[in-house]
Amino acid sequence: MTDKLFDSTDSVRSAKPLRHAQSVSFGAPMALELGGSLPSVTVCYETYGRLNAAADNAILVCHALSGDSHVAKHDENDDPGWWDILVGPGKPIDTDRFFVVCPNLLGGCRGSTGPGSINPDTGKPYGRDFPIITVSDMVEAERRLADHLGIGRWLAVLGGSMGGHQTITWATHYPDRVCGAIPIATSARLTSQALAFDVVGRNAIRRDAHFHSGQYYDKPHGPDVGLAIARMIGHITYLSPAAMKQKFGANRLQPRDVAIEFEKTFSVGSYLGYQGSKFVERFDANSYMAITMAMDLFDLGDSPETLAATFSRARCRWLVLSFTSDWLFPPEQSRDIVNALIANKAAVSYCNVRSDCGHDAFLLPNEFASYGEMIRGFINNLAGCVRPNGDFDDADEPRGHSPTSIFHQRRLDYERIVELIPSGASVLDLGSGRGGLLSRAKQKDSHRVIGVELDEQAVLTCIQRGLDVVQADLNKGLRPFADQQFDCVVLSQTLQAVHDVEGVIADMLRVGRLCIVSFPNFGFHKLRRMLADEGRSPKSTGVLHHEWYNTPNIRFFTIADFDDFCRQKNIRVHRRIALDTEASAEVFEDPNLNADLAIFVISRSGNAG
Amino acid sequence: MTDKLFDSTDSVRSAKPLRHAQSVSFGAPMALELGGSLPSVTVCYETYGRLNAAADNAILVCHALSGDSHVAKHDENDDPGWWDILVGPGKPIDTDRFFVVCPNLLGGCRGSTGPGSINPDTGKPYGRDFPIITVSDMVEAERRLADHLGIGRWLAVLGGSMGGHQTITWATHYPDRVCGAIPIATSARLTSQALAFDVVGRNAIRRDAHFHSGQYYDKPHGPDVGLAIARMIGHITYLSPAAMKQKFGANRLQPRDVAIEFEKTFSVGSYLGYQGSKFVERFDANSYMAITMAMDLFDLGDSPETLAATFSRARCRWLVLSFTSDWLFPPEQSRDIVNALIANKAAVSYCNVRSDCGHDAFLLPNEFASYGEMIRGFINNLAGCVRPNGDFDDADEPRGHSPTSIFHQRRLDYERIVELIPSGASVLDLGSGRGGLLSRAKQKDSHRVIGVELDEQAVLTCIQRGLDVVQADLNKGLRPFADQQFDCVVLSQTLQAVHDVEGVIADMLRVGRLCIVSFPNFGFHKLRRMLADEGRSPKSTGVLHHEWYNTPNIRFFTIADFDDFCRQKNIRVHRRIALDTEASAEVFEDPNLNADLAIFVISRSGNAG
Repeated sequence: MTDKLFDSTDSVRSAKPLRHAQSVSFGAPMALELGGSLPSVTVCYETYGRLNAAADNAILVCHALSGDSHVAKHDENDDPGWWDILVGPGKPIDTDRFFVVCPNLLGGCRGSTGPGSINPDTGKPYGRDFPIITVSDMVEAERRLADHLGIGRWLAVLGGSMGGHQTITWATHYPDRVCGAIPIATSARLTSQALAFDVVGRNAIRRDAHFHSGQYYDKPHGPDVGLAIARMIGHITYLSPAAMKQKFGANRLQPRDVAIEFEKTFSVGSYLGYQGSKFVERFDANSYMAITMAMDLFDLGDSPETLAATFSRARCRWLVLSFTSDWLFPPEQSRDIVNALIANKAAVSYCNVRSDCGHDAFLLPNEFASYGEMIRGFINNLAGCVRPNGDFDDADEPRGHSPTSIFHQRRLDYERIVELIPSGASVLDLGSGRGGLLSRAKQKDSHRVIGVELDEQAVLTCIQRGLDVVQADLNKGLRPFADQQFDCVVLSQTLQAVHDVEGVIADMLRVGRLCIVSFPNFGFHKLRRMLADEGRSPKSTGVLHHEWYNTPNIRFFTIADFDDFCRQKNIRVHRRIALDTEASAEVFEDPNLNADLAIFVISRSGNAG
Repeated sequence: MTDKLFDSTDSVRSAKPLRHAQSVSFGAPMALELGGSLPSVTVCYETYGRLNAAADNAILVCHALSGDSHVAKHDENDDPGWWDILVGPGKPIDTDRFFVVCPNLLGGCRGSTGPGSINPDTGKPYGRDFPIITVSDMVEAERRLADHLGIGRWLAVLGGSMGGHQTITWATHYPDRVCGAIPIATSARLTSQALAFDVVGRNAIRRDAHFHSGQYYDKPHGPDVGLAIARMIGHITYLSPAAMKQKFGANRLQPRDVAIEFEKTFSVGSYLGYQGSKFVERFDANSYMAITMAMDLFDLGDSPETLAATFSRARCRWLVLSFTSDWLFPPEQSRDIVNALIANKAAVSYCNVRSDCGHDAFLLPNEFASYGEMIRGFINNLAGCVRPNGDFDDADEPRGHSPTSIFHQRRLDYERIVELIPSGASVLDLGSGRGGLLSRAKQKDSHRVIGVELDEQAVLTCIQRGLDVVQADLNKGLRPFADQQFDCVVLSQTLQAVHDVEGVIADMLRVGRLCIVSFPNFGFHKLRRMLADEGRSPKSTGVLHHEWYNTPNIRFFTIADFDDFCRQKNIRVHRRIALDTEASAEVFEDPNLNADLAIFVISRSGNAG
């Protein structure tokens, strides 16, 4: 086992004061969401960079359960911060440009008011007299800090896990004070499973023989075993099964000889025992109970309707990030948030970042090249630093899951499709790739454009371009989108690669007043001849890229087939445009024979054209 | 919240003796796997049904961590057993026919020798002096019981979770004493994650202020809180996230008012607190530690090679079952076992039963219609009760994931394929459906036939027919099968529905000395004409079932295309048979035009024909 195994994202600093922390005390009593009040509130925080004259370059970083205000190093000699990869000079959150504020949250034990603070009414630590606090209360304390710092509006608020709960609360409680929100690896409420783990952790603390009903501050021992047990449970939930296998699988029975009073038979045991023991040195059990209870009580609802109502209050732009292997805050929960935002026609981008690191992924460098750049791109665009479209070359358009163009010349159909989009229309582009069509539609005059794309790199590019894009698999449906939500839905050269053709078309027609579908025509004379005369599956270096055995194109159909389909399904066809892309010409004579590409404008029967 | 929520598979019986339990004491000392010995061993057990004169109808049921000998009711007035759905008159394990034995395991606290038993050397309970025991030691105690009962060979040994560990140990340690083994929801060793949860549970017990180094039997309090915490953690891991959501999602903040000293804020909290509190009444903390440690130490290795070596000792037939939502013993771990068995050319069937119930699924009725019948079918075949093949009608062959036959008449190709299989050959059938081809091959003269199939119902039918079948997705590869493991691999009318054509063909050729591939020929004149003359994707009620937009057939290729493919990939073609299935005739003239079905016999270049 290497020392690496025992590195923790929580560096142990209990003995050392937080060197760069400042604190501000607010004498006015603070009423609490669930009743009661705190007679005064102290907020401990650190800042990085400088607030500009317009006070419009401030970014709030919200920490999670066991974090603190020390989000990043202040200089090379400083202690490591818990998010050094993200925050610093030249980093995605660039402290040369932005003024970064990171407060210790209310209820914490690293300088802000918490159960270990002195209750001014009694002159003793609150202990279990500390009232039940909520995430809203934490945000209220942060609001006071913002006022104190003269920040009327955050350029961005972001945080992972419980930091994401604060981010969402900021955006929905103070809509005019948040320009962009980045909730990461978070949820609208905990899963029952995650909540259950918290309950067991609190039970371990509460029933520890040294808990003394929370008044243990003047005792020789606190509920150290209970807190360590809670932390061990937490650590398991932060890691993915794959990450645990990688860390502990090979050296299963070779524990490190750490000085702990917990079981050391297995390597994973020595790791957990070490983490639990160390945590006790720097964290207060009452704070742990107060903060996890606030997290467990955070509940924006479970139904799409409730969530949509909650998020209707927000006005900001959103970047929502989750991680594929996170089972504590599973990606479905981020998708629920995205769905609620989409239902509100909010400007939102979403990516479920591929990762093996579990919930911890948002603190680790492993996938940082992807999600770190998404955060950078999103914030840069908030700050009005949109890179010109010229930077992106459509010729290099990667096709990811939806390798649409089986024809040589690229996206000739874009121009025709952009012409077909009604003036000022809202546009949803399915299989949007790097955003070639979206950016053209936006440049024209569409006021709301959003893409759906599966490929992570393509999603990143869209975000960098300032385009809204939601990562999703078309075959899994367009559930997040409401009926008739868009003026125009586009599916360009993707249908032939789709499994659930009926489902995707039905969903398009549900979501869009008008739909534009382009597809290669397998009735094209060259293709027919290949089968008829040569007895071979249609392919050609000139016209078709793929072999029959590896083509992403799995649906073979002609213009006539699609016409039949529309008739059978009672779909209204507004326009049919047939193109010979080799000749760059529109085809009017026998298009099913003479066109290699078709564009259909369709709608549900009865929709206005 | 309903009372239902608080039903547990562990019925609380601590106050009542196990009415029907018998016990036998073995005076001879038992040497233990990790050193030391027990001066004597008592095994408590229950039996159901009657041992026949030949003593060949005995079935051993091994319980899991917290179970006991009371696997089922003995009569209608008896207490519920923990596996009543499976064991009883007319049940899948039919006590009218079989003699069922269920012992309490060594280390337990329900009658068999464990840490709470009196140490004959001291006259006091063992407590922490109880030596470290392993699953092998448990099986050794069960072996003594088998000898005592006059059972030379079990017809079947089965068990879920840790009961599966015992099952595997029986089959590999006493190969001549097990006819069939059914390990369920189990593994060759725990995941690091599962092991970590056990460690935390033991830490909670060990560091409980009332643990007294394990010598708490004469104290007013034992480590009740620690044991309850361990049990709460366990309960979370037994449930799937979906099951927890279903149980606790809607009534999140409506806990039941149970008399517990644990947190009751949330419904899931009252559930866990109740389960933890009840567990303490019927289970001994030292037993919990001893048994979980035995489970954690169970380790047949992690590499395919080690596992293959371990399983090479077994001689029995196998039915391996896992559950899709089981994250404590994830299905991959059962697949590792299956892979090791396949590598040893063992007779094995496997199904990953679709379930939302998590690890608990094996004790619940939800999916019992599927896996219960698999167990019944497997045991019936062990007992020589193979249903005649006539019971199964190939005309009803369901095609599940591989809806192969796009042509009307069914499986005409079976007869030709069976003719092509070399005499006495071992056969692997990919996409085997309900086993139509397998049973024909077996009837002919193949000594080893095994199917690969995705559809759960089709897998069940194969098991009922006494055919070996492994549930797997062809597109995910044939990794479990070794190079050139089979004389003959068959892929009949499935290739056109396969995504990864190159991968599947390459894997077939790797695994089989000779491969037989049948597929519909899209060069058939009728199909060509549809595209060429009518300009439509080939389909017809008479010949093709599906529409272009919903056909499972996603690869369009002709005999000529497949010939080209073989040439390009350097695949040796031994025979080409072309059929006109409508005319039921072989086609010799221009098969690419005149045949609707082709059968290719191929091998890696260089293989013997």
